[in-house]
Amino acid sequence: MAQKPSIPKGTRDFTPSEVVKRNYIFDTIKKNFQTFGFQPIETPSFENSDTLMGKYGDEGDRLIFKILNSGDFLRSYNENLIKTIKLSLYNLRVYLKSTVKVEMNSYGVNFVEVLPEILRKDKQIKFDESVIDLTNLAIDLWSKIEILVNKEDWIALLINGGDEDKSLTNLSVGIFGEFYFEMGTKYLGNHISEKALRYDLTVPFARYVVMHQNEIDFPFKRYQIQPVWRADRPQKGRFREFYQCDADVVGSNSLLQEVEFVQLYDAVFADLKLDGVTIKMNNRKILAGIAEVIGAKDNLIDFTVALDKLDKIGEEGVKKEMLEKGISEASIEKASPLFNLTGTNLEQLDALEKLLSSSEEGAKGVEELRFIIETISELGLQTATLAIDVTLARGLNYYTGAIFEVGAPEGVKMGSIGGGGRYDDLTGIFGLKDVSGVGISFGLDRIYLVLEELNLFPEAIDRSLQVLCVNFGEKEALMALKLVTNLRKIGIKADVYPSNAKMQKQMKYANNRNVPFVILIGDEELANNSFVVKNMKAGSQQTYSLDKVEEFSATL
Amino acid sequence: MAQKPSIPKGTRDFTPSEVVKRNYIFDTIKKNFQTFGFQPIETPSFENSDTLMGKYGDEGDRLIFKILNSGDFLRSYNENLIKTIKLSLYNLRVYLKSTVKVEMNSYGVNFVEVLPEILRKDKQIKFDESVIDLTNLAIDLWSKIEILVNKEDWIALLINGGDEDKSLTNLSVGIFGEFYFEMGTKYLGNHISEKALRYDLTVPFARYVVMHQNEIDFPFKRYQIQPVWRADRPQKGRFREFYQCDADVVGSNSLLQEVEFVQLYDAVFADLKLDGVTIKMNNRKILAGIAEVIGAKDNLIDFTVALDKLDKIGEEGVKKEMLEKGISEASIEKASPLFNLTGTNLEQLDALEKLLSSSEEGAKGVEELRFIIETISELGLQTATLAIDVTLARGLNYYTGAIFEVGAPEGVKMGSIGGGGRYDDLTGIFGLKDVSGVGISFGLDRIYLVLEELNLFPEAIDRSLQVLCVNFGEKEALMALKLVTNLRKIGIKADVYPSNAKMQKQMKYANNRNVPFVILIGDEELANNSFVVKNMKAGSQQTYSLDKVEEFSATL
Repeated sequence: MAQKPSIPKGTRDFTPSEVVKRNYIFDTIKKNFQTFGFQPIETPSFENSDTLMGKYGDEGDRLIFKILNSGDFLRSYNENLIKTIKLSLYNLRVYLKSTVKVEMNSYGVNFVEVLPEILRKDKQIKFDESVIDLTNLAIDLWSKIEILVNKEDWIALLINGGDEDKSLTNLSVGIFGEFYFEMGTKYLGNHISEKALRYDLTVPFARYVVMHQNEIDFPFKRYQIQPVWRADRPQKGRFREFYQCDADVVGSNSLLQEVEFVQLYDAVFADLKLDGVTIKMNNRKILAGIAEVIGAKDNLIDFTVALDKLDKIGEEGVKKEMLEKGISEASIEKASPLFNLTGTNLEQLDALEKLLSSSEEGAKGVEELRFIIETISELGLQTATLAIDVTLARGLNYYTGAIFEVGAPEGVKMGSIGGGGRYDDLTGIFGLKDVSGVGISFGLDRIYLVLEELNLFPEAIDRSLQVLCVNFGEKEALMALKLVTNLRKIGIKADVYPSNAKMQKQMKYANNRNVPFVILIGDEELANNSFVVKNMKAGSQQTYSLDKVEEFSATL
Repeated sequence: MAQKPSIPKGTRDFTPSEVVKRNYIFDTIKKNFQTFGFQPIETPSFENSDTLMGKYGDEGDRLIFKILNSGDFLRSYNENLIKTIKLSLYNLRVYLKSTVKVEMNSYGVNFVEVLPEILRKDKQIKFDESVIDLTNLAIDLWSKIEILVNKEDWIALLINGGDEDKSLTNLSVGIFGEFYFEMGTKYLGNHISEKALRYDLTVPFARYVVMHQNEIDFPFKRYQIQPVWRADRPQKGRFREFYQCDADVVGSNSLLQEVEFVQLYDAVFADLKLDGVTIKMNNRKILAGIAEVIGAKDNLIDFTVALDKLDKIGEEGVKKEMLEKGISEASIEKASPLFNLTGTNLEQLDALEKLLSSSEEGAKGVEELRFIIETISELGLQTATLAIDVTLARGLNYYTGAIFEVGAPEGVKMGSIGGGGRYDDLTGIFGLKDVSGVGISFGLDRIYLVLEELNLFPEAIDRSLQVLCVNFGEKEALMALKLVTNLRKIGIKADVYPSNAKMQKQMKYANNRNVPFVILIGDEELANNSFVVKNMKAGSQQTYSLDKVEEFSATL
């Protein structure tokens, strides 16, 4: 029976119309990345697991898709394991038979110490030490053998087993079962998977910079538009495969980069005709300064996490959460100017400057933000608004300076459609210290939904075919194909209907594909070397000579 | 300690210069796909395993990358398994204790029959029946319990075990070990992985067509350019992640499609300035006809596989292989005209027509090929050559009509740079019968190598920055940024060096990025509102007014 096909939950097929619209957004972003001097890179879809694991917190690790090693990994693991157990029991039997005073504890200590060496020398057993720690294995194995040693009937079987090999095998399989059941997964994990699908573009980028540091001219402005995968619970608007569009600069501390990113957001959204977006900015140093000034330095994370919710839960809610997290009432009282920061960006900067005058870090943050705000106000923006938002924290622990977030135009219900920030040490985890990075990201899926909601996709975007020639039969089709060949050469999307199906069917196809011009070449046209163009919208018809195709193509 | 980063074997990072060159090829292919009326679709990177498995032969199945299920799948599987074993032994004990005449064979038969029902009703045990066949599990489990039943000491332990639960547990763990060691992988496979990375674009496309059949207007011309993954042994020029570029038409039997694909190959390679490629064509029906005529119908596959090697092993080699595969000497003798087919396409067609006159299928193949050859000769090609190649089989069993393969220009050592064919039943595996498909594919990595070897990438392709402004300090940089902002608005790739580093450093950066124009705005220029443009190639300089940026931009 044929399978009824489906796709994995959280993934999507994209129809032609969706691909075209998505590409419209990608292309607009890409064009602006390029005019701003960014260069594209691409990294593999999967990375070595240890490149990704431990970089996104426990929750992130859990959401990383792991790829199964190829080959019959489980069988080889099992075979090695049972051979190891058998070898261990054999040695134990020798010891028990030859020793007058059995000292099980010291035997165990020795076992753990010696087994790894024995395994390394054994020609029949081959554990891959890059994935299995032999000492840990010895410890865990001994914990199981110890149980056996305490069972008199099993010990009798081990020492006196008539058919030696058979009793060894039986006991080994028992140990194998006990071991496997309790601890199998612990060792199997690495055997099963050494590769994992990309979780974001930032960590692979950091890895790329370190690996290619000798061929990169810093400051390195790169952009990267590729899919990422997360084993998140799928829900409306959250997918297990989605694209990220990132631009980052590494190797420059200059605040001009932050200025550029504000301009870049503005340029992209202006090109997309998405007017009225708000580019919200904050600075991690301002958040740290506030926490310092109000005496909640040790609660910086709790403080910012709570503050970030001001939009959603209001002033009272934020204060309540801060209290619950152990921030004192006095501290919260000192922070209250923040809840009512109003006025222009410059007025807010002045208020912050005053509030943070006693914190060196806070003052530095205000100064940085002021430079960006003032420079942008000199340069002007096309359609976006730049606004200070001290509640902005973006939960990401690695930002150390500027924090960006882009809000959709007022009236559109949608979370942020972009975000980013500066992180002082992007590549340290891979051994390249003190390389500052700053970058932003565009949220493709959300931008798509906003453009759809506001009807901002260009009307002609879905025009996959400009000209369709009706097929009246073999000779006519050949003539039509000649015409179409010439149209295609000058870049016009043109086609001949593949069979001389009924006129009605062919016209229906033209309608469904939204073709603006249908060309008719029948007997008569064949005879006098001409073709008739039917304008599908206007309903009008015009005849052209086949020798003067350019008279028609110029009208397209 | 910081990790020394690396990437998985068989995968690649692409540097900016490589991405740009790859995109040049992609864009050229895409542009032509579009002018030929093809529409883009995209499918998820991973599919449900059963969508992919069994579609590419055993070897293909082995090369599919499987994705690990998330969650602690192994623990839950193990727990279910040991509970099942314990339950089985408990029931066996009850039987052994209560029955006078033990009939182990009939107990076993009954066990296999009843266990699935018991498991389904049990509240503690939950096997996912979509991944585990409970009857098979019962059979395999019984095969292990039967061994136990034949061991007197174990049976004694089972019946007389003092502490009932403990003896049950010990015996269960023993069985678990035996079972797991021999048959664990058999059941674990599905528990571990239900998803797999795309192996090609054809099967996902077939799946797409079936799932979206009600929204598709047939004939459906789709193109798809996405990466695929294969767990192949990495070697020079063979990667574990690589892009496929496919165009297919489904739902049309018209040979005009084949004609179009020849034109499409020609158009793409003409656009890439890759002159002199050979589009080789054959027809599966011709191969079948030959096998029929020479009396080797039952050896069609062996015959075509051997014939396909004519290039590599010569006439004698092919004949030897045919003999070895059991094709008679008389048959091979009859086939010998094939080894010396020469002359024009039309002469070869005439020879084939004569050879195949007694085979209906063969004659049909010749007729089809003749139509394509004659129509193309009417339409003409730009730079490619169309050539009949009766040795072309492409090993793929699913082609039923036309077979395409594109050879690089003479003198370039490279396997085929494209291929394709017609398959009468693309979507049948997913339940949609009798939908004919025909398609071609472009080999991106090989085309890249050929263009590189022949130095055919456009010279300016690597120009990621057209203008760089030197940074002489804060004020000057602000003015430069204004200028750059205006240049970017009209689509010029422009940048300001982010810090006022030493002139030498900034010029080195400009050189490394291959920037053609460097702009200088110093004190003097700031004072008289001008900027100096240095032509890096010519070494010349020119001064423009900041109010007349267009005078400069017009020269770009």
